Amino acid sequence: MDVEQFRKAGYAAIDQICDYYTSLEQRDVKSAVKPGYLLEQLSTTPPTKGEAFPAIAADFQKLVMPGITHWQHPKFFAYFPSVVTFESILGDMYSSSVSNPGFNWSCSPACTELEQLVMEWMVTILGLDDVFRTSSGKGGGIIGTSASDMCLTAAIAARERALRVLAREHHNANGTATPTEGPTDIPFSVRSESTNKLVIYGSTQTHSIGVKTALLLGLPFRALPVKAEDGYALRGDVLQAAIEEDIKKGFVPFFVIGTVGTTSSGAVDYIAEIGEVVRQYPTAFLHIDAAWAGMAWALPEQREMLRLAEVNKYGDSVCTNAHKWGLVGFDCSLFFVRDRRDLTEALDVTPTYLRTKEADAGTVIDYRNWQLALGRRFRSVKLWFVMRGYGVEGLQAHLRNGIDLCSDLASVVSKDSKFEIVAPPRLGLLCFRLKKEGANAAELDGLNVELNSRLAARPDVHLTQTILKSEDAGEIFCIRFAIGALRTTKQDVDEVWAEVVKDSDTLLLEGDRLKN
Amino acid sequence: MDVEQFRKAGYAAIDQICDYYTSLEQRDVKSAVKPGYLLEQLSTTPPTKGEAFPAIAADFQKLVMPGITHWQHPKFFAYFPSVVTFESILGDMYSSSVSNPGFNWSCSPACTELEQLVMEWMVTILGLDDVFRTSSGKGGGIIGTSASDMCLTAAIAARERALRVLAREHHNANGTATPTEGPTDIPFSVRSESTNKLVIYGSTQTHSIGVKTALLLGLPFRALPVKAEDGYALRGDVLQAAIEEDIKKGFVPFFVIGTVGTTSSGAVDYIAEIGEVVRQYPTAFLHIDAAWAGMAWALPEQREMLRLAEVNKYGDSVCTNAHKWGLVGFDCSLFFVRDRRDLTEALDVTPTYLRTKEADAGTVIDYRNWQLALGRRFRSVKLWFVMRGYGVEGLQAHLRNGIDLCSDLASVVSKDSKFEIVAPPRLGLLCFRLKKEGANAAELDGLNVELNSRLAARPDVHLTQTILKSEDAGEIFCIRFAIGALRTTKQDVDEVWAEVVKDSDTLLLEGDRLKN
Repeated sequence: MDVEQFRKAGYAAIDQICDYYTSLEQRDVKSAVKPGYLLEQLSTTPPTKGEAFPAIAADFQKLVMPGITHWQHPKFFAYFPSVVTFESILGDMYSSSVSNPGFNWSCSPACTELEQLVMEWMVTILGLDDVFRTSSGKGGGIIGTSASDMCLTAAIAARERALRVLAREHHNANGTATPTEGPTDIPFSVRSESTNKLVIYGSTQTHSIGVKTALLLGLPFRALPVKAEDGYALRGDVLQAAIEEDIKKGFVPFFVIGTVGTTSSGAVDYIAEIGEVVRQYPTAFLHIDAAWAGMAWALPEQREMLRLAEVNKYGDSVCTNAHKWGLVGFDCSLFFVRDRRDLTEALDVTPTYLRTKEADAGTVIDYRNWQLALGRRFRSVKLWFVMRGYGVEGLQAHLRNGIDLCSDLASVVSKDSKFEIVAPPRLGLLCFRLKKEGANAAELDGLNVELNSRLAARPDVHLTQTILKSEDAGEIFCIRFAIGALRTTKQDVDEVWAEVVKDSDTLLLEGDRLKN
Repeated sequence: MDVEQFRKAGYAAIDQICDYYTSLEQRDVKSAVKPGYLLEQLSTTPPTKGEAFPAIAADFQKLVMPGITHWQHPKFFAYFPSVVTFESILGDMYSSSVSNPGFNWSCSPACTELEQLVMEWMVTILGLDDVFRTSSGKGGGIIGTSASDMCLTAAIAARERALRVLAREHHNANGTATPTEGPTDIPFSVRSESTNKLVIYGSTQTHSIGVKTALLLGLPFRALPVKAEDGYALRGDVLQAAIEEDIKKGFVPFFVIGTVGTTSSGAVDYIAEIGEVVRQYPTAFLHIDAAWAGMAWALPEQREMLRLAEVNKYGDSVCTNAHKWGLVGFDCSLFFVRDRRDLTEALDVTPTYLRTKEADAGTVIDYRNWQLALGRRFRSVKLWFVMRGYGVEGLQAHLRNGIDLCSDLASVVSKDSKFEIVAPPRLGLLCFRLKKEGANAAELDGLNVELNSRLAARPDVHLTQTILKSEDAGEIFCIRFAIGALRTTKQDVDEVWAEVVKDSDTLLLEGDRLKN
């Protein structure tokens, strides 16, 4: 394809994207295809000769689009929102046109410096402490792929920090330095004897990234209990008791995940309580997972509820995804650390072929030493475009719209005696279930599993389910209504809710008939 | 920005990309900016109000573009090529327009199924064994972010597999099952006692992803020596001796990295020799890192030299980056495994809120369980567009062009008595240095460090350096000339080489003057 063919194909692609967004509301939110739909239609033999682009673009519309679930649909209320804006799409275009692997400053100085800049903006916009600014010389921010990658990165940094603490203790106790191996300054004996004693802490409500991080590192994850009366949030005393119990058994606390806005119900852990506990253990590191809710720190009126001051005081690292309801297309995970040496001391490897005079001089940041992988995409462009295109006020208006719509919905649901709101509504997230007089826990669960399954079978409704687990209320199966897509209006919420009510009425009626 | 504003901004973006590619050759390949150039020009205060897009797009041209190093420039010969094509840019556009986190099949069925399809195509194109097809029901392929992420993924899968082997041995020896903890079936006692005995093996020529993987997992990496007379490739006997030595000390081999095309010199490890060694140890896993060279498996005439049959016979996992010289923009790392249970048994975590009826029924793949992170981009679109737009023959023609240009250059360099080719030229990579009669190793290094530093200071030449380390030839500082950009012609190579010769002549003349 030459430049003029690209111009033509590019205009056509822009037109198709425009058509898509113009017709979005006439589509069902969910794809109705069956497993294998695409594989059945496409040849497994790759083409020998190149094809003209219009045929390829036509196949995208004909074959791929039917298999797309429309996360940008105004009636998308499943999982969490994953918003993309036109500004973000344009950012990706510019970014892919100057494709480069960005591992060093010199790979393309603009990639590193624009990222430094927009992450400074994000510190301001979110109200994070100045220590999280790269310009502070102490902490800093980096754009990553996902909250799970960032949690793993934080855990690795925490593990190395904890082992360094243990190495110092060991050195002080024995008065001798022990030999190191490889590119790390941690004695092999300390690493070898202590790594298998390290424990990760979170709650039963911590996102599965907690368990996955533990799996990836081969270390145990302790899922601590929460109470429904605490709004499913983790308390400090529960954490402290678990740590003390583990220490008695010879274990070492090294990584605590505090969540601001859990995936199941939007619970906000008691960060100050947890932080005070973490501070008592020099090996322990507090990672704040605010993947979804953190973007709402952009709203001054939400900061107290979202415990921003506590995060600023106690968090060793903080992650929030601009690619959830922050208007930036996937992937754009914002990751901040209080002390960037925690990253570089764990992650820096510099072979000869990656050396540059600027890095040798210490005048630039090579972000590869702040992350797991070597290469990285030029993600700051889309974040820059979105923040400039919307301005802080535009972002705030979008967030407030979702919160207001959820608040309206909560008010409707709470007035309907068929339903029960099972956890405090939080930002754009509402967890509800059907009630039924005289039904026991198992019957209630069965009823709601059935309702969920009927809703899941509909292409025009997209909600997801969860199980809330607590010490005082047991296990509650419920349905999540997560608001936050860009084009969602009150009418969209009302229309979907009307369908939920309709299916619920049918279900309850069927139950009554069976009984009679 | 509404749809019509996006149409206008989109057309303008396409035009700017066209202008960029039309003017690429008139630019210097390297950015000439100094550290801090962008940060000095931009306000650290985020905008309160949104701006109209034309001003933002203008700033991209005015502020960002001067800080871009042009990896698509026909005279880009640094690191390895990182090619992007118009088809790939278009793929990214379509993909970002339907942004979604793709963790489950149901997130957007097309994302999973198109990826399955194009990875089948890649098995065919690269000549990989059928076992690496997802349709084989045994192995499979997934598109990831980078060869480093894939190496880490493979190492984690290998660790879990090794621990399972040890758990079985333990069980057979003791006749009792031991308790497990958390989401894994590996007894905690086995994990706790054995993890710190696991060792990763590679050579001194293995990419730094080997050392980094070891750092991330907190396990030792043994960099085994190679010989210049073996073309800097790792031999089986060296590996075997190291493993046996380690086993005597109580260590356990679990992960061996065999490289096809090292970053320093393009060396191809003796995969069959290594594979035969690995097979002797049930805990050991062979990962093939063919990040750069693997795409050349698309050329039947290169397969023997690149030991494809040996990879097919012995590799437990294989990685090659389509985003290097494979015409697909960063990121598009192709990762294949012989047994996908190695991935799922290490990586599967399924909380209630991620369950779907299709996954419960086992009829679909949820790629989140094949990778470290939860979310994932819709990368298959760009790979699909590129392979259809170029066809296999188009990809082959591009690869052969780079190889032929390198072969021509090697012939020129070998005829110039000033220079020495220090490792066998491989595909598009040539490593050379200045020679000087009577100079010792340190003087030769000094001379070449100076030549490299003069070349590095020029905006119109972009080469990178390395140190080749071997048992028989010591450490050799040399310069890498890596060919493979899409638009590179013989004239581009000749012109840059002429500059190298010019700087070399000047340098040698200065040396002679100093002596006289």
